[in-house]
Amino acid sequence: MIKLAIDAMGSDKGSQIAVQASLKFVHDYDVELYVYGNEEELSSLQNKERIHIVKTTQVMEMTDGALASRRKKDSSMVRAIEDLKAHKVDGVVSCGSTGALLSSSTLLLGTLEQIERPAIMTVLPTSNKRGVVLLDIGANASNTASQLEKFAILGKAYAKGVRQVENPKVALLNIGSEAKKGDDLRKETYQLLENNDQIHFIGNVEGKDVLNSNADVIVCDGFTGNVMLKTIEGASVFMMKSLKENLMDGLLSKVGAVLSKKSLKRMKMQLDPNQYGGAMIAGLPEAVVKGHGSSDEVALYHALRQLYLIVENHVIDKVKEELK
Amino acid sequence: MIKLAIDAMGSDKGSQIAVQASLKFVHDYDVELYVYGNEEELSSLQNKERIHIVKTTQVMEMTDGALASRRKKDSSMVRAIEDLKAHKVDGVVSCGSTGALLSSSTLLLGTLEQIERPAIMTVLPTSNKRGVVLLDIGANASNTASQLEKFAILGKAYAKGVRQVENPKVALLNIGSEAKKGDDLRKETYQLLENNDQIHFIGNVEGKDVLNSNADVIVCDGFTGNVMLKTIEGASVFMMKSLKENLMDGLLSKVGAVLSKKSLKRMKMQLDPNQYGGAMIAGLPEAVVKGHGSSDEVALYHALRQLYLIVENHVIDKVKEELK
Repeated sequence: MIKLAIDAMGSDKGSQIAVQASLKFVHDYDVELYVYGNEEELSSLQNKERIHIVKTTQVMEMTDGALASRRKKDSSMVRAIEDLKAHKVDGVVSCGSTGALLSSSTLLLGTLEQIERPAIMTVLPTSNKRGVVLLDIGANASNTASQLEKFAILGKAYAKGVRQVENPKVALLNIGSEAKKGDDLRKETYQLLENNDQIHFIGNVEGKDVLNSNADVIVCDGFTGNVMLKTIEGASVFMMKSLKENLMDGLLSKVGAVLSKKSLKRMKMQLDPNQYGGAMIAGLPEAVVKGHGSSDEVALYHALRQLYLIVENHVIDKVKEELK
Repeated sequence: MIKLAIDAMGSDKGSQIAVQASLKFVHDYDVELYVYGNEEELSSLQNKERIHIVKTTQVMEMTDGALASRRKKDSSMVRAIEDLKAHKVDGVVSCGSTGALLSSSTLLLGTLEQIERPAIMTVLPTSNKRGVVLLDIGANASNTASQLEKFAILGKAYAKGVRQVENPKVALLNIGSEAKKGDDLRKETYQLLENNDQIHFIGNVEGKDVLNSNADVIVCDGFTGNVMLKTIEGASVFMMKSLKENLMDGLLSKVGAVLSKKSLKRMKMQLDPNQYGGAMIAGLPEAVVKGHGSSDEVALYHALRQLYLIVENHVIDKVKEELK
């Protein structure tokens, strides 16, 4: 049976999110869950079938950066990754500090052959309903062209392995569609991708195409990807707010808004970044998923589901194949 | 009386957009308009009060890049900028090729003292209703920290001069709020802005804050700014589409949607990039505004209005003051 580890501590909303998500997840999926954290806080998970509490004494805080992974050896995060390394579990999900999770994972697990730097990978919804794999969304503050080429391979393997896309179309995020567009990094990456036989490269996409193109994978540096993802998040907040204000303005609209309420709620869920699930840390030899820091139990449930699919579909093995 | 030049050719939607916008604009504002383009296409402007047709024979196409400005000397774009240089008009608006407009302007007009590279500057709507000045949104494919510092000064002068913000708060777009966040460019720029007494620097903002912060000016490199702006455009298209689909799904919602139609239309206008007006090419010694390539007559009208405000408020003189 698949064994998944949950770092229950260090997220913005506290450990009860992990408790709720775990209970629902073991109910829906045939897995064993190992929940790492403060014994008392996790007490309501005691004696639950297929749930194991792993007592830890330290918490990786949101303010903890890369160095904390050496210091907090009994944190729920580090302990879960240690057990992943020892193959006591098959994958780890954490909503804690991104910096600490990245460094703990890289330090303890190493990276896959050929991979200098891991990338954080997520899936965004698209107009064509197929969704798009986007990486790197913030593991790196800057990248080289060769790193972006590797990200393309990681993204392709994920699109094939988890999303069952036959021959994933890979695009490069740029400021124009022609090959000569962009800065030196983009021009060099364009050439590498175009000349790589493993990659079905369809050229550049612009910001306006990210949610509206036919690409299956979009590659970008960690700085741009992070700004872009957070911009989508911010734009969605702005638009929902603006829509609400506009709908509440005038009596007829108010009636309309009540009737459309269910529709609006559905759309909000669709656009909610928490709903697309977690973000895989790609380039590691094991399955690690980062949940949004402000995840609620629904978002963490989705992150767990994503981790489950990665393990169930042997995505890491498929990535290794691609890198050969 | 203020004299404004309109490059009527080379936009995606043809010259009639310029004809319509010109007629409405002279009706609403006390200006003289000089409309550059094909005589026949502009014939409906003949004998209109305060409108002058300037016959030109060439058209700067969307595919024309930087080099075309030397080749197409009788294009509506180059002729308008020539007349701006000769002070026959006080400002130019064009919806033509960005590359050609940038190079024609820089070549013919030069740049302001201390300014190595112009920036394209726009104003985005914000949750607090005050709006935010954003630059560079794509004049440059890459920038240095010193260029970003100059962009901050240009943005500040515009916020003060056109938008009447007393002591504009300037922020740097980055991937985290702390000073040490981001790549080398961001770290270096942070230091320059923090140590610049002319700038009221409030630190970093992230992508999610762009439409939701209290900054009056946000500075970024041209690559990131272009990706971000186009991402907002694409996200708004995605969300409107998704909203429409969700609203049309179910009878009650359908009734609701009809009642809310006016509200939705209002919101769409608010989010429509064409509605925020044009984008100023900042750093030039004269007033040049770039309209969106797919502008309709409403968008071009707004771009004209923005140009009018820049001239009326002596923004270029204020920028020169700031740069002293």
